[in-house]
Amino acid sequence: MRVGIIGAGQLARMLEEQASALGIATSVLAQDPDEAACETASEVIIGSADDLDALHTLAGSCDVVTFDHELVDLDLIAALEDAGIDVFPSSSALEFSVDKAAMRERLHQAGLPVPRYSIVPPGVSVDFEAIGDSWGWPLVIKTASGGYDGKGVFVVDAVEEAHRIEHALRDAKRIMVIEEHVGIIKEIAAMVARNAKGDIVSYPAVETVQDNGINREVIAPAEVDLDILESASAIACRIAELIGVVGVLAVELFVTTDGLVINELALRPHNSGHWTQDGAVTSQFENHLRAVLGLPLGDPSMRDAFVCSVNVLGGPEVTSFDPLLADALAIDAKIHLYGKEPREGRKLGHVTASGTDRTEVRARAWAAAAALGTPSAPQI
Amino acid sequence: MRVGIIGAGQLARMLEEQASALGIATSVLAQDPDEAACETASEVIIGSADDLDALHTLAGSCDVVTFDHELVDLDLIAALEDAGIDVFPSSSALEFSVDKAAMRERLHQAGLPVPRYSIVPPGVSVDFEAIGDSWGWPLVIKTASGGYDGKGVFVVDAVEEAHRIEHALRDAKRIMVIEEHVGIIKEIAAMVARNAKGDIVSYPAVETVQDNGINREVIAPAEVDLDILESASAIACRIAELIGVVGVLAVELFVTTDGLVINELALRPHNSGHWTQDGAVTSQFENHLRAVLGLPLGDPSMRDAFVCSVNVLGGPEVTSFDPLLADALAIDAKIHLYGKEPREGRKLGHVTASGTDRTEVRARAWAAAAALGTPSAPQI
Repeated sequence: MRVGIIGAGQLARMLEEQASALGIATSVLAQDPDEAACETASEVIIGSADDLDALHTLAGSCDVVTFDHELVDLDLIAALEDAGIDVFPSSSALEFSVDKAAMRERLHQAGLPVPRYSIVPPGVSVDFEAIGDSWGWPLVIKTASGGYDGKGVFVVDAVEEAHRIEHALRDAKRIMVIEEHVGIIKEIAAMVARNAKGDIVSYPAVETVQDNGINREVIAPAEVDLDILESASAIACRIAELIGVVGVLAVELFVTTDGLVINELALRPHNSGHWTQDGAVTSQFENHLRAVLGLPLGDPSMRDAFVCSVNVLGGPEVTSFDPLLADALAIDAKIHLYGKEPREGRKLGHVTASGTDRTEVRARAWAAAAALGTPSAPQI
Repeated sequence: MRVGIIGAGQLARMLEEQASALGIATSVLAQDPDEAACETASEVIIGSADDLDALHTLAGSCDVVTFDHELVDLDLIAALEDAGIDVFPSSSALEFSVDKAAMRERLHQAGLPVPRYSIVPPGVSVDFEAIGDSWGWPLVIKTASGGYDGKGVFVVDAVEEAHRIEHALRDAKRIMVIEEHVGIIKEIAAMVARNAKGDIVSYPAVETVQDNGINREVIAPAEVDLDILESASAIACRIAELIGVVGVLAVELFVTTDGLVINELALRPHNSGHWTQDGAVTSQFENHLRAVLGLPLGDPSMRDAFVCSVNVLGGPEVTSFDPLLADALAIDAKIHLYGKEPREGRKLGHVTASGTDRTEVRARAWAAAAALGTPSAPQI
């Protein structure tokens, strides 16, 4: 069997590691031969995810096509499907992670908890003053598509600032989503895997720590009441069924004083699930492969009481990990590096620690990340 | 960093999977582009392990060179070392797994437990009758070099048969090792990893089940008295230091009524250590990479009370695993397939099960192997 992956970043690389173990070949569609997954793919196709010919070249040798990223043109994905190619998740499911406006509408209609929102097509003028008076300042303004890792999300405190973002999005012909700024107690994420038969497995919900829109740390399980943990998993299962996900689905949620509110969806392996590689019986990467290949899903149980993963970000002086590896490996943590050129602030890998004491596990993971030059996060 | 691997079989493939996770690139020297590791290596060099130019091409782009197999010419490896290339394990250590005559001599001189043996250069005639009278029949005759997976090892019951083997080895210009046939209660294997600084970590000794010289099953830990477990690990540590191993060392041992007897050595990841991928905190592949790269070694502890791996051998009707994967993955076991063309009796992968009940764990591993078409073993 051969799986085609649109995109060749670290998620594709980690899918490849798991595919190799299962004896499954991989082809990646890479923009650039230097991308993380090219080093280890069995086949690399250089081309753009926006080029139907390149997509057909990828699909031609593969049994199924899946995704490393969601920066795709849904019409092209639908064209692949029309040509009889198995694409998972499908374009109709993927719409809800590619298009935040469609996502908000669909989830709201289904009675799922989302913040108050307003969808504004480019060129339509907005009375920010009225919205701010009603929902309270600050407001959140997002581009409906094309954002990731905190890019394309703006928290604005006043009318003038809101208009500045509005004009920028209008110039870029982007649909704008305006949302209330909910009072966030914690950010958590729930992940499920679903195959085409409709089988679902659910990982325990995790706590995620962000800094400037970049995920810094993930702790499994989230330290919240059991009913919140269960409710987060139930929401993820409900969404997976609602939009027909085949593959893994990560649902980012806010814990607020009024309960859970859905933030974003990702229909692919996700940073909030990296802990599963070392901390769950079956990793998100293995379950994603199993799901898209129509195979039975694996046990999502945790292997330890607490598992913490910390992202390795490029430090100011780090030009290579070679001189840092010895100190990092002396710590009891699993190291995952993506083979990317170190650059300040860039996501270059992650480390995972496991154990029975939450505080000690977190400290150990941060120590390993620090040994690799990762700057400390303000929250820690 | 880049690691060069001489050979491109399944051991190289599994080293690559682990190297990818650590952000380390790999180059393999493959005889044939269809070999298991070629699909996923970052660089494939086609050539023979007996060709010094090919070895230099491999070494040229790598920080260190290591091995997928031991079918190498030690003089060529020594030539690489003389040219200033880091090769681990070194030719002087590797000699003891490549040359069973040298191994027997060195271990015997060091007072380590080996069966009674006699080394016979080609052309020297042997009085098998006298040896048989003294040690008892049957006798074991081995070629000192070039054998693997039971090939090159003969158990002979009578003088005529012994002479037939003797003549065949003489024609092939092979040194012959004659050994007493010890009464085997169990076969076990002990594995250690050692780095150039001399740090050593030791995995618990495992029980190995062979059939016609092919390993069928490995159970960790071995069901033997604690002093035998400890003694097996102590022997492996002693040998690693004695011959200066850098990398992992597997020592195959016989449990006899007279105690432990050393059978074979392997200075590379070994079938008896495949369980460590899913069953130990740090796998043999990760510790081999750490050792040859001069990095600190990882924790070899078991993650479960019992871990069992069963080799996936080609079944009579199996031409592809694609239609079998669903049934196999429905069982709670980890599946490792090497991407090799199925052929009857060929080692194509392994499956690993973990848990708290030895009998149940073994049954689960065998069920997963059977789902992949593996014929059952006579002993089970």
